[in-house]
Amino acid sequence: MNKKIRIGICGYGNLGKGVQKQIEKNNDMELIVIFTRRNPEELSKHTSVKVASISEVMEWVEKVDVMIMCGGSATDLPIQVPEFAKYFNTVDSFDTHAKIPEYLNHVDVEAKKGGNVSIISVGWDPGMFSIMRAYADAILPYSHTYTFWGKGVSQGHSDAIRRIKGVKDARQYTIPVTNAMERVRNGENPELSTREKHIRECFVVAEEGADLVAIEKEIVTMPNYFADYDTTVHFISQEELDKNHSGLPHGGSVISCGVTGDSNKQVIEYSLNLDSNPEFTGSVLVAYARAAYRMQQEGMAGAKTVLDVPPIMLNINSRDEVIKKML
Amino acid sequence: MNKKIRIGICGYGNLGKGVQKQIEKNNDMELIVIFTRRNPEELSKHTSVKVASISEVMEWVEKVDVMIMCGGSATDLPIQVPEFAKYFNTVDSFDTHAKIPEYLNHVDVEAKKGGNVSIISVGWDPGMFSIMRAYADAILPYSHTYTFWGKGVSQGHSDAIRRIKGVKDARQYTIPVTNAMERVRNGENPELSTREKHIRECFVVAEEGADLVAIEKEIVTMPNYFADYDTTVHFISQEELDKNHSGLPHGGSVISCGVTGDSNKQVIEYSLNLDSNPEFTGSVLVAYARAAYRMQQEGMAGAKTVLDVPPIMLNINSRDEVIKKML
Repeated sequence: MNKKIRIGICGYGNLGKGVQKQIEKNNDMELIVIFTRRNPEELSKHTSVKVASISEVMEWVEKVDVMIMCGGSATDLPIQVPEFAKYFNTVDSFDTHAKIPEYLNHVDVEAKKGGNVSIISVGWDPGMFSIMRAYADAILPYSHTYTFWGKGVSQGHSDAIRRIKGVKDARQYTIPVTNAMERVRNGENPELSTREKHIRECFVVAEEGADLVAIEKEIVTMPNYFADYDTTVHFISQEELDKNHSGLPHGGSVISCGVTGDSNKQVIEYSLNLDSNPEFTGSVLVAYARAAYRMQQEGMAGAKTVLDVPPIMLNINSRDEVIKKML
Repeated sequence: MNKKIRIGICGYGNLGKGVQKQIEKNNDMELIVIFTRRNPEELSKHTSVKVASISEVMEWVEKVDVMIMCGGSATDLPIQVPEFAKYFNTVDSFDTHAKIPEYLNHVDVEAKKGGNVSIISVGWDPGMFSIMRAYADAILPYSHTYTFWGKGVSQGHSDAIRRIKGVKDARQYTIPVTNAMERVRNGENPELSTREKHIRECFVVAEEGADLVAIEKEIVTMPNYFADYDTTVHFISQEELDKNHSGLPHGGSVISCGVTGDSNKQVIEYSLNLDSNPEFTGSVLVAYARAAYRMQQEGMAGAKTVLDVPPIMLNINSRDEVIKKML
């Protein structure tokens, strides 16, 4: 047995915990340390793994092969990843689609300084869904690709509802419109507005005496988050929310339809149905952590995306074994 | 505009014709020559592209960047690809799964002699389905992956029926068992026998006066092809066969189910619904021809599989454009 790949986790929310669980299922790697901005002693009560303050990270250079960056895309990753990339191979799930090219360039410069490989925007979207869009576009030029999300919990939308006055707790589901998906699968290449692709369903716990009509109106008219969608609001008790809506399921479909020859329709569909969004995202991060390590071992450096990584790099088994079993 | 990638096609059956149609949709490549074992003059009547005898192939060294090998896996490819790989980059759709490792090694030796890249076993299975099996296995260790084929025409099974005495023509459809697919999607990880996964439906044109009972019995009891399946036989007229069963549709699904954390089911599904099997396979070959050319330009040599090729290599557009648009 080769030596195990030494993994560090930076950030210990839902995603960091998902990554930790998945490392345990990959026996070619071991979790060495978890970094937190909170009090490490507090976190240490909840895990047997070494917990360190993020301020001590320089003490771990040469002790960690790959850092799995589990912070948020808004403020954590754009700061942390370029800093870490100088000293460690990294993988992250940066998901602000519009800012990816700029982020990629920034991380690339820093990773190259350290001779490290940083794989950015890993997960399922961006991530596996990006791969599927790219494959379909390459195989079927002039095809149309549609991405549908859900049914699943959007944490951003749930948070937006919770910020409304009079709201105690909330959970928002993004749901794809079945009829729109069917039209795409049938190869109609429809023009679909935002409203025609997804609906939003909200389960809201109101504070006692709150103005429910006002809350509902504020939700359904909220710009960017809800105004462009058909949105349903259900007021329920905290008990019901905890009992029926405590999970973080998600998923979705990438559907591509193109024509070959004169009129032969070719439809490609990739779907995920996930009981746990953070655990699945964590699983993808763990597989790409292996790839980051291997790519650096092969002499590569800089920022990469999932599109730059050959599928063979992700598997725990040798190339010969994977080809024999999977091809 | 860079110079176009110069493509040759070797073998001009359904697959070769599918490749030709797809090259026309990729404006970074041009079809230079089609090689045939038949009389080139005969073929020239049907296409405006230069047709040459396969015996003249050495005259085309340095004039063709990538040869797309469209012969059969049984006898053509194992002979032709190792010979061609010395002089050209190649892609092929070798699909005898059990012999792939041996074939890979053989082609690897020859391709390296010429400093060429040969991508083997390209198409949808082996090919895109192999990629999906490998991704799922890497992301979800200990998951179970099931491959279902159809509904679609199996040319091998159709040919087997046509060889029966008294049969004039035949078309065989492979059909996945819906209930089995549902059980897999539900994450039951069922043990499924061959019979439980697929059924076979045959449309047969019998010669006048043929013994239909004997033909049906010979079909449903045929070892390897039909004996392990529930098979239905319909006798129809040649007119009906030509009218309703002249296409070559196919497709299928790769469905993987794994568990993360303690009990969270994660289901991944990739499905193809293809009006034309040879045209879709041809489309995949064309995208990988581009990758073979680019990999050789980057200094690589030897036999590769679809698992060795980063998705970014397949797209007509630049890396920056693909990342911006697809990630």
